[in-house]
Amino acid sequence: MLTLYYAPHTCALASHIALEDAGVAYSLQRVDFRSREQQSAGYLKINAKGRVPALVTPRGILTETPAILAFIAQTVPAAALAPIEDPFGFAELQAFNNYLCATVHVAHAHRMRGHRWASDDSSFADMQRKVPESVGACFELIERQMLKGPWVMGDDYTVADAYLFTISQWLEGDGVDPGRFPAVKDHRTRMAGRPGVKRAIAEELATG
Amino acid sequence: MLTLYYAPHTCALASHIALEDAGVAYSLQRVDFRSREQQSAGYLKINAKGRVPALVTPRGILTETPAILAFIAQTVPAAALAPIEDPFGFAELQAFNNYLCATVHVAHAHRMRGHRWASDDSSFADMQRKVPESVGACFELIERQMLKGPWVMGDDYTVADAYLFTISQWLEGDGVDPGRFPAVKDHRTRMAGRPGVKRAIAEELATG
Repeated sequence: MLTLYYAPHTCALASHIALEDAGVAYSLQRVDFRSREQQSAGYLKINAKGRVPALVTPRGILTETPAILAFIAQTVPAAALAPIEDPFGFAELQAFNNYLCATVHVAHAHRMRGHRWASDDSSFADMQRKVPESVGACFELIERQMLKGPWVMGDDYTVADAYLFTISQWLEGDGVDPGRFPAVKDHRTRMAGRPGVKRAIAEELATG
Repeated sequence: MLTLYYAPHTCALASHIALEDAGVAYSLQRVDFRSREQQSAGYLKINAKGRVPALVTPRGILTETPAILAFIAQTVPAAALAPIEDPFGFAELQAFNNYLCATVHVAHAHRMRGHRWASDDSSFADMQRKVPESVGACFELIERQMLKGPWVMGDDYTVADAYLFTISQWLEGDGVDPGRFPAVKDHRTRMAGRPGVKRAIAEELATG
């Protein structure tokens, strides 16, 4: 049995969708960000980084979205969620997920988590002003070059689609008009219609 | 034949060491950061993100350090650079590499690349002041919990060791005393003595 620690409206949604896509049994544990539960002693035993997602498995606890997504794909090969028998294709998928994690999510995080990297209110305001530009530039690259279409990796749906969908939910909040990115917008619409995505979102809102 | 695009003193060293460890044939292409070659039209065709590393393979070009490291480990299984037959062990390795990429490297980057996330000189100065604290906190977690010892993943050397060694080179420049982290410091010393690490560093300096 797997247990996913998550909070609504976070990148944990990607792992949640991947669990749905994989069709495996799992349970959900909501971490209450409003009461800063992610920094509580109890949760820090689950993930010392104080973040979501964390996936509890029979072997131990996994963190970091790209690692969790690859783990789900590798442990449920029948779901065909990644080209796990092709090291080059797998690396392309990893590179995409890594870009979302280390560049796009990081750019986004400067809107609300500036305290990680600075201390002054004026810096936080400056960072917030820059987010539409930095996040917009990331999505320009995704639109122009990285999203092969119809799915991220081309003809085959993969865990990268769950991750892109998750991050692209944040565009409006980041002050970026999704209308600038027709391929991303179309991808978001198709993803929103998938049963696994609908179930994951409904579950998160129901327990939120 | 593989070609690694790199610049000295960057995270590309991790991929360079992994290529040495794998014992495969490769060539090096230095990207001149002093003349901002990473933003030149020629290099942007190699990597539209304008960063290093990029690994040119017969199948296409790979970017993002964790993806390149996993690719090298998976394509040269005889070198035993990752637990590629164990999805959980592989995911733990991925999670470690991902933390270096998306959290530790990002914290470090606020010392010299603040323009990615802000615009004002006062913000850059504020970010620079925070780096010793943020990078120091990352290495406290690595020292206390993540570095299993003697190698990152325990008894077996993996590509994560090349990556940790690379990032830990930056501690002094980031204003963090490596003496605070005996296990990391010992790891760095053992890594520096490995023939593949010596060759990689010598090659980078020779062409630098």
